[in-house]
Amino acid sequence: MNDLFSEIDDIFHSNSLAIYGVSRKGGLGNILLQGFIDQKFPKIFIINPKITESNVKILGIPVFSDLKSIGEPVDLVICSVHPKYVKDIIIECGENGVKAVIIFSAGFGEKGEEGKKAEEELIEIARKYRMRLVGPNCMGFYCPETGLSFFPALSTESGPLGFISQSGSIANILAFCSMLKGINFSKSISYGNGIDLGFNDFLEYLSDDPKTNLIGCYIEGVKDGRRFIELVKKIKKPIIIWKVGVTPAGEKAAHSHTGSLCGNDKLWNNIFNQYGVIRVYNLEEMISMIQAFINPMPVRACRIAIISGPGGPAVSSADACEMNNLKLADLTKESKMKLKEYIPEFGSSMSNPIDISLQATFDPILEKKTYEIVGKDPNVDMMLIYLTMLTPRYKDLINLQEEISKPIALVSAIDVNVSSDSFSNTVKRSFIQLRAKKVPGIIKNLNQSGISVHPNEYLAAKALYNIYQFYNKCGKSTLLKQ
Amino acid sequence: MNDLFSEIDDIFHSNSLAIYGVSRKGGLGNILLQGFIDQKFPKIFIINPKITESNVKILGIPVFSDLKSIGEPVDLVICSVHPKYVKDIIIECGENGVKAVIIFSAGFGEKGEEGKKAEEELIEIARKYRMRLVGPNCMGFYCPETGLSFFPALSTESGPLGFISQSGSIANILAFCSMLKGINFSKSISYGNGIDLGFNDFLEYLSDDPKTNLIGCYIEGVKDGRRFIELVKKIKKPIIIWKVGVTPAGEKAAHSHTGSLCGNDKLWNNIFNQYGVIRVYNLEEMISMIQAFINPMPVRACRIAIISGPGGPAVSSADACEMNNLKLADLTKESKMKLKEYIPEFGSSMSNPIDISLQATFDPILEKKTYEIVGKDPNVDMMLIYLTMLTPRYKDLINLQEEISKPIALVSAIDVNVSSDSFSNTVKRSFIQLRAKKVPGIIKNLNQSGISVHPNEYLAAKALYNIYQFYNKCGKSTLLKQ
Repeated sequence: MNDLFSEIDDIFHSNSLAIYGVSRKGGLGNILLQGFIDQKFPKIFIINPKITESNVKILGIPVFSDLKSIGEPVDLVICSVHPKYVKDIIIECGENGVKAVIIFSAGFGEKGEEGKKAEEELIEIARKYRMRLVGPNCMGFYCPETGLSFFPALSTESGPLGFISQSGSIANILAFCSMLKGINFSKSISYGNGIDLGFNDFLEYLSDDPKTNLIGCYIEGVKDGRRFIELVKKIKKPIIIWKVGVTPAGEKAAHSHTGSLCGNDKLWNNIFNQYGVIRVYNLEEMISMIQAFINPMPVRACRIAIISGPGGPAVSSADACEMNNLKLADLTKESKMKLKEYIPEFGSSMSNPIDISLQATFDPILEKKTYEIVGKDPNVDMMLIYLTMLTPRYKDLINLQEEISKPIALVSAIDVNVSSDSFSNTVKRSFIQLRAKKVPGIIKNLNQSGISVHPNEYLAAKALYNIYQFYNKCGKSTLLKQ
Repeated sequence: MNDLFSEIDDIFHSNSLAIYGVSRKGGLGNILLQGFIDQKFPKIFIINPKITESNVKILGIPVFSDLKSIGEPVDLVICSVHPKYVKDIIIECGENGVKAVIIFSAGFGEKGEEGKKAEEELIEIARKYRMRLVGPNCMGFYCPETGLSFFPALSTESGPLGFISQSGSIANILAFCSMLKGINFSKSISYGNGIDLGFNDFLEYLSDDPKTNLIGCYIEGVKDGRRFIELVKKIKKPIIIWKVGVTPAGEKAAHSHTGSLCGNDKLWNNIFNQYGVIRVYNLEEMISMIQAFINPMPVRACRIAIISGPGGPAVSSADACEMNNLKLADLTKESKMKLKEYIPEFGSSMSNPIDISLQATFDPILEKKTYEIVGKDPNVDMMLIYLTMLTPRYKDLINLQEEISKPIALVSAIDVNVSSDSFSNTVKRSFIQLRAKKVPGIIKNLNQSGISVHPNEYLAAKALYNIYQFYNKCGKSTLLKQ
């Protein structure tokens, strides 16, 4: 581990923090403060020069008029004030031995030349005091392990996902959406304009971070393309990137958002393909691919079996698989013979895609046995299973996975997080529903067993192909599983 | 209206039905029966030749050993028995003056030559008795207005959507998913192998049905291509088609599912493009496009404004719009001046895509005013609004729409149907959540105002482009709105 790793790791392990921009009347600073309180960050102070009385508290946190009056060292400062005050605060931080400042404030490089000049001044001050800067125009760090946070009410549970985002809101929204799918973070980083610590620094950090198993990223542009390429070439953990600014309109929007230059999109695609980076185009895809790479089962070929209770989705899933370069597996004669014992003769199909018919609706054994026979077939490398909704039968798949260790992707036509509240009592009587509160835990268990859950057959097929690609096309094949 | 229309309409308005395949021990027939009971179909009988005692009831419905013993006319018969019994039942129906039979049973044409021969026999018998057949290998009709149903527990509310599906399970799953989005049906038709009444018949029927405003379809293949083309050319209602069998693997799967021949996919695309048919590739897309065409606002150009609380999604939405051939609108100077009064100077963007900054999180006026200023801008033809989740502020949009009547598509990063149950109490305290039970009603109101809700920015942009296309490219421009 190099100096850069230690410097970033030290920020994540700050023992004390002070926040500028919290006021009696409330505002964004207060929301950020609530985030740290919710995560039980050990030692928090508020700095507000307008509050000169002693012993004032806001949200239970003591207020000081400046850093010095705290009377003890502060590791990290969060700066959520009007941009015109930022420079003086950075100087104050430097003078008081602060190690790092997260500049939440926007209004710098993304606003043009004057903002860029202001950024240069900040960097100069930071260098002078050997202090690191995150931002400006960012949300900073979320790390449940050490109590750092974005917005309030995020999960306090740690997990395998490291995330890096140029956009603070994307990092924040992903943290909320992830809670619903049982996806937890080692660290999430929003770096905004990245004038000091930038994307490549954090990518390198997460690649060395033992708590991070996979890396997700949202980027508009990257400053040092050469270093980026060297990093993705070297990094063995799965990297999933949502790169925007694909079109001229998106590129223009990115420029006014964080001042980014997006670069030629074809070039990006070539780099991603060459080094096994998984590319996604929206949040829904990001969550699908994260799930698939929480614990991807190693696989040498991509002969897929499709199992569907209903026949229609089986046909569409076959299309989705072929469009994603997967090959429909030929089941062995033995498997077909065994399937005949369970699958009804009519309204079904014993050849792949396997349509287990409407009978499955009220015959749980049929579903379980089909999973087993098909999952154990030596001609089958991976499975796509189309469900109307997630049912308690998911346990059969987790048990089976312990024997077969093959990539499995589920499609749930009805969003898995939809609670039985949304349905009438009649529906609740007719169908086995999982309780909404239990769903994130169930998806977490599925993901940890190498089973991902998707909103449609195209994302399921894409996820499976990406796993195959990861192990076979990019020289990363022997790396994940010991 | 022609004879065909009357014949199909008569089936939908059957006064009495008898169902074969219900037993004391339960099974698929009993599930179907429960569907009709849930929809309060007026007069139902069970036929089971094995039950010869009198006054037997199953699920409260009287059982007879044959049709004749009922002692009164039966309009419609549902046949859910082993395929070997179907022929005799069809003869019995013909002899007893039944008008139509829905053959739920599978095991016919989709199983090969012998099955096809059996189908021909059935058609011959039906012709002899001037009786119409639906199926085999289908779910039949769902019509809340008259009490016909697929599976139990479907919505009893009628609506503007007519749906035709070769696959029974797709029709059934869509009916469930639609409930969550407040989408209601005029009629939904699952016709399976379609040996007598087929896809084109139902398409023509729905185009003439005054209760149907838009038509959704799931098809694997179509028997009479020429008639299909004539129909889509003529029909003025929006038609959304999920055509599967796109790839060789899908085509093969379709053949074993309903015995369909899919045909050249490029040819299909040409027909769809030429006649303004909206093509979708999965259930999620189907639901997005249905929402967009419940009440599509007429539009002459496709200059779009993007509004996003957070900046990241604004950039990605700009990509999604350009990829879907929409043009980013240049707001008027007046609009920009007005926006300046509300949108904060930093962490935001006043030019399109409009990033109203994180401030929007706790400033509802900011969001409302932005919608108004942008929505009323004469340079803006349509709007895409990216939300983290649906909030009670949706009402502002419905009010605005009464003044502007422009196509609006919302993206909700968190699935709209996710109930607050899924979140911790902290989240519930921090965010305004709509109660899960109210969501379908809210989406219904939004859809009726010409506002659709989507799971990602690509579907939102695709929906808006399809509306533009519908009014401008396919000669259907003056038809929907008077």
